Amino acid sequence: MTIQGKFEKLGTDAAPGQEVRLAHQAGDWMTGAVLPGRKVDFSHGDVDAFPPTPTAFEAIANGVSRGGAQAYTEYRGDADIRATLAGRLADFTGAPVDPQDGMILTPGTQGALFLAVAACVGRGDKVAIVQPDYFANRKLVEFFEGEICPVRMRYKDKDRDAGLDLDQLEEAFRDGAKLFLFSNPNNPAGVVYSADEIAGIAALAGQYGASVIVDQLYSRLLYTGETYTHLRAQAIDPANVVTIMGPSKTESLSGYRLGAAFGAPALIERMEKLQAIVSLRAAGYAQAVLTTWFAEPAGWMADRIRAHQAIRDDLVALFRGIDGVTVRAPQAGSYLFPELPPLRIAPSEFVAALRTQAAVVVTPGTEFSPHAARSVRLNVSQDHKAAAAAVTRIATLIERYRA
Amino acid sequence: MTIQGKFEKLGTDAAPGQEVRLAHQAGDWMTGAVLPGRKVDFSHGDVDAFPPTPTAFEAIANGVSRGGAQAYTEYRGDADIRATLAGRLADFTGAPVDPQDGMILTPGTQGALFLAVAACVGRGDKVAIVQPDYFANRKLVEFFEGEICPVRMRYKDKDRDAGLDLDQLEEAFRDGAKLFLFSNPNNPAGVVYSADEIAGIAALAGQYGASVIVDQLYSRLLYTGETYTHLRAQAIDPANVVTIMGPSKTESLSGYRLGAAFGAPALIERMEKLQAIVSLRAAGYAQAVLTTWFAEPAGWMADRIRAHQAIRDDLVALFRGIDGVTVRAPQAGSYLFPELPPLRIAPSEFVAALRTQAAVVVTPGTEFSPHAARSVRLNVSQDHKAAAAAVTRIATLIERYRA
Repeated sequence: MTIQGKFEKLGTDAAPGQEVRLAHQAGDWMTGAVLPGRKVDFSHGDVDAFPPTPTAFEAIANGVSRGGAQAYTEYRGDADIRATLAGRLADFTGAPVDPQDGMILTPGTQGALFLAVAACVGRGDKVAIVQPDYFANRKLVEFFEGEICPVRMRYKDKDRDAGLDLDQLEEAFRDGAKLFLFSNPNNPAGVVYSADEIAGIAALAGQYGASVIVDQLYSRLLYTGETYTHLRAQAIDPANVVTIMGPSKTESLSGYRLGAAFGAPALIERMEKLQAIVSLRAAGYAQAVLTTWFAEPAGWMADRIRAHQAIRDDLVALFRGIDGVTVRAPQAGSYLFPELPPLRIAPSEFVAALRTQAAVVVTPGTEFSPHAARSVRLNVSQDHKAAAAAVTRIATLIERYRA
Repeated sequence: MTIQGKFEKLGTDAAPGQEVRLAHQAGDWMTGAVLPGRKVDFSHGDVDAFPPTPTAFEAIANGVSRGGAQAYTEYRGDADIRATLAGRLADFTGAPVDPQDGMILTPGTQGALFLAVAACVGRGDKVAIVQPDYFANRKLVEFFEGEICPVRMRYKDKDRDAGLDLDQLEEAFRDGAKLFLFSNPNNPAGVVYSADEIAGIAALAGQYGASVIVDQLYSRLLYTGETYTHLRAQAIDPANVVTIMGPSKTESLSGYRLGAAFGAPALIERMEKLQAIVSLRAAGYAQAVLTTWFAEPAGWMADRIRAHQAIRDDLVALFRGIDGVTVRAPQAGSYLFPELPPLRIAPSEFVAALRTQAAVVVTPGTEFSPHAARSVRLNVSQDHKAAAAAVTRIATLIERYRA
């Protein structure tokens, strides 16, 4: 692939957060008036509505006071902070974490994903990717010139498991895929893989000697009554699993750019070698903020989950009240992935109309799967009232543009 | 190249800052006692000896207070901060900077270098690289499977220009290199390219339609009587030049991980597309620290330069007092790159002996050039007295291991 072709493929025009770079799109297909109401940017969580964990700023202030020792850490991150986190992550995931050789701190979970995929995927390597899943998964494999083996997730037909097509996953492994990359809870659908599904993934990875990168970014934001199964605590060779987490979402610490990958030492070592030329390390002072992670004040996380669950319930009800909209209630995380009814304008035009006529930013479903053109993703970690009002405006525009 | 081969080549064992991961090396070739004295880590600057610019912490505190608008910027960085910096960087470099399409903020200058090289270098592409130069330049080209065309810099024979072999640069371009990547001031030698050399580079790049990435990380730390020529302000097509700077060194802000690349819009666009899957953005809150850049209190930069110049003068004199050591006095930056006399142990063993027997960390010359095995690099941004004492210990070990 030419370098020009590579970068043409690497589109960010529809990527969340980049909407500000789009020219004001007032196509002649737009009809009707602009709807009044407070702007809601569903492309990411609102950290003003859900502020960072209360001790985060104090922690970075301490980091800055510590001076040089905190500014210049090993490329894989400060040894003491890794030791502290290893215990907490082992407790959370139910399997040991080696702070010395089995963990790296990164600039956000995006940094961890980039390094992990780079550590596993060379030109022509086949990689099993779920449809739908986090848009960067596909782009990362494409950037390293890997070949994508899509694996369907029938999330719309289910309510107790994610709906992963394990036969298709096996087919991908049989065809030579040596890596399976997926998010759990799933981004964008907010569904959680069942214990059986995770056991199935572990068994297939073992049978075919494949590695698995699992992005568990949202695994702490688990709604009432749901069960979460950590892949790394199942019957799977630890040398083949890298788990990725970070405090950017539930904990609202995205502004500090922090993530962690833990697991297979050989892969973590490659990730560190690469981090040395990508960005050296996660910002040294900010690393200190990770000391607050999994150590939030008592009740803080429960409150945060409760508040998100209330928003989820309201928005799911609002979407279900729109004729022709289907949406599965998320089991975890803050994403909602409704499927809209047929419209008389193209999906990209409707997303532009929402932005221009309703002050609502959503991410088009095609970022997550070629088969999700009728869906849009919303991050519902927003001011509760404003989010509900915004969904009402979405409903109005659906009527306006209904086919 | 297999992915395994690629990562085997990407060594970090000798990389600055990673010494803590090396097993204690007490080879049977080590003789004599351990020398007493305060440890000095010359692999990077000491931000306790030279603390960050005084308003940096206040700036990040303001960034955190700003909340979501500061946490979630465009991938290329906050628009207001880019606008502020564009004016200052245009003033500093003597050529316009387009804040909208011609600038990206990155996690450190390392982040900028990575993205810039990725934007230009595909498999088999030839890249002209100076010997010696910053070690990551070579590693980045190798990671993207480019082919290196080495260009000699005869810094040891000169004192008023860098000593770049322009004939060899032309040969590289004639052989098909479409990119020249270099640091100015040079890391590790601390030399500055003369106006004639920069004009020569501009002319050759124009003649052969090549792009140039110039890493100007140390261009503000210019010693008395020296002149600096900005490539981007010369007769060169702006569509072919990317300039990289950042506040990690002179300003001691490395712990915030901030850098900036500015110039060719088409390349900046590619860099942003890639940043979207590498780390999303430079940490949002930390970006606010860039508002203090080029806006330091009156006299602050002059004091900092004066203090570094005094250290440079002392250390150069100390090294020149050792029989058989040659060192060119740096014109800018905080690196010293002395060449040591022949020793009876290997260069890597001597570096290990310095660490183990003299509490002195230096970076081996081979990180910067295959022809610099007898040199070591020191970052002299250290406590003045401790640095001088450390060089005295280096002198003692040179005598101990002299051939």
